[in-house]
Amino acid sequence: MPRYKLLIEYDGTPYAGWQRQANGRAVQQVVEEAIEAFTGEALRIQCAGRTDAGVHATGQVASVMLAKEWRTDQVRDALNAHLTLMEEQVSILAAEKVPEAFDARFSAKGRRYLYRIIDRRPPLALERLRCWHSRKALDADAMHRAAQRLLGHHDFTTFRAADCQSDSPMKTLDRLDVVRRDGEIHVEAAARSFLHNQVRSMVGSLKRVGDGSWSEADLVAALEARERARCAALAPPHGLYLTGVVY
Amino acid sequence: MPRYKLLIEYDGTPYAGWQRQANGRAVQQVVEEAIEAFTGEALRIQCAGRTDAGVHATGQVASVMLAKEWRTDQVRDALNAHLTLMEEQVSILAAEKVPEAFDARFSAKGRRYLYRIIDRRPPLALERLRCWHSRKALDADAMHRAAQRLLGHHDFTTFRAADCQSDSPMKTLDRLDVVRRDGEIHVEAAARSFLHNQVRSMVGSLKRVGDGSWSEADLVAALEARERARCAALAPPHGLYLTGVVY
Repeated sequence: MPRYKLLIEYDGTPYAGWQRQANGRAVQQVVEEAIEAFTGEALRIQCAGRTDAGVHATGQVASVMLAKEWRTDQVRDALNAHLTLMEEQVSILAAEKVPEAFDARFSAKGRRYLYRIIDRRPPLALERLRCWHSRKALDADAMHRAAQRLLGHHDFTTFRAADCQSDSPMKTLDRLDVVRRDGEIHVEAAARSFLHNQVRSMVGSLKRVGDGSWSEADLVAALEARERARCAALAPPHGLYLTGVVY
Repeated sequence: MPRYKLLIEYDGTPYAGWQRQANGRAVQQVVEEAIEAFTGEALRIQCAGRTDAGVHATGQVASVMLAKEWRTDQVRDALNAHLTLMEEQVSILAAEKVPEAFDARFSAKGRRYLYRIIDRRPPLALERLRCWHSRKALDADAMHRAAQRLLGHHDFTTFRAADCQSDSPMKTLDRLDVVRRDGEIHVEAAARSFLHNQVRSMVGSLKRVGDGSWSEADLVAALEARERARCAALAPPHGLYLTGVVY
């Protein structure tokens, strides 16, 4: 049976996260309903990054096996027609035919996330649900320097949600760049995979470095403590974007 | 009495435009309520650009005369405290003390607008209420070349709303650049002042040039006809931003 890879964009604001759940509407459910409206098949799809409620995506990837072979543009357009009709904040950017062994989650070799912060005293009107607002000015250079200390293979227990289901807290962080761009601070993270809440945990702690309340040494000490309680307050979900998956 | 100039950002989505009206909540009303909550004065404020419902601003300017002298940061922070409390999508970016003769509307020497378009087949999830979506690919270079034909002093009757209250349809358009930037098409317009719906009218017609259904000559013929019926369909309000006012 033909397998398809879907590249998906969504505004996380109205959804209870990617994964189907008892309470609230999930992005997974929305995409599965669009597939059912298209082919009549009630299927379960896999994704590369199970984003939390409020987290956005510009490059989520899901995979699905369909009974029948369709042109990739038919898959994309038919799903989008249903999503538009249902007024969902979800868009299928592309559909691609992939080998039967492809699994959006287990075949992924890398995930990339972007975290957007605007540091200014006035509140955010236009970017309120798109960026984290810091009333204090942040030192992006200091944040970047400190971030480099988190790169590599570590026990990230400090930066891991209490409910994280990963077998091990060991992860390899490949990139954590902090750059100021057009009046925003962008934190760009890349790794093969992340622990639950790892990016938001690291960003929350980096913000402490940016506002001067933590030194770079405090950040390193927090990492080395391997203790959840040493993490700063979690950065809110609405600044986070899953931007891409590497296969 | 001290006069203040306010620099204002807003998400136009939930508002019935800038100007107070019988139906719906207006940005003017929201800012006036914030002023009343701050100083107790029920005042009317002037603005530089009376944006329509759904139109955004990153650089709206309003002026107001207060009974008492306040520090400018007090004015900004007190108004923002009220706007945040009321969960409004309006933010006072800055307050400035100005001479008593200053009037946000009549002292303005120039207005700048940005119009954002995303041309791609899939629908917009994240930028749905921030950009105009064109399913057809647009030729931004052709749009830019055609736009240059609208520069200068003209009778803009073709690009003017039926209900426009300006005494004359004569305006001088200083800049109308169309540039592709990060996957978006930006139309940047500057003039001393614009007719009602002038930017959205011009953008609607430029899009016809971009999708190939109008030639540059068609656009010029539409301008020269001085006839509202010759204008293409109006570009929707949610792609438009008042970005700045020059004094």
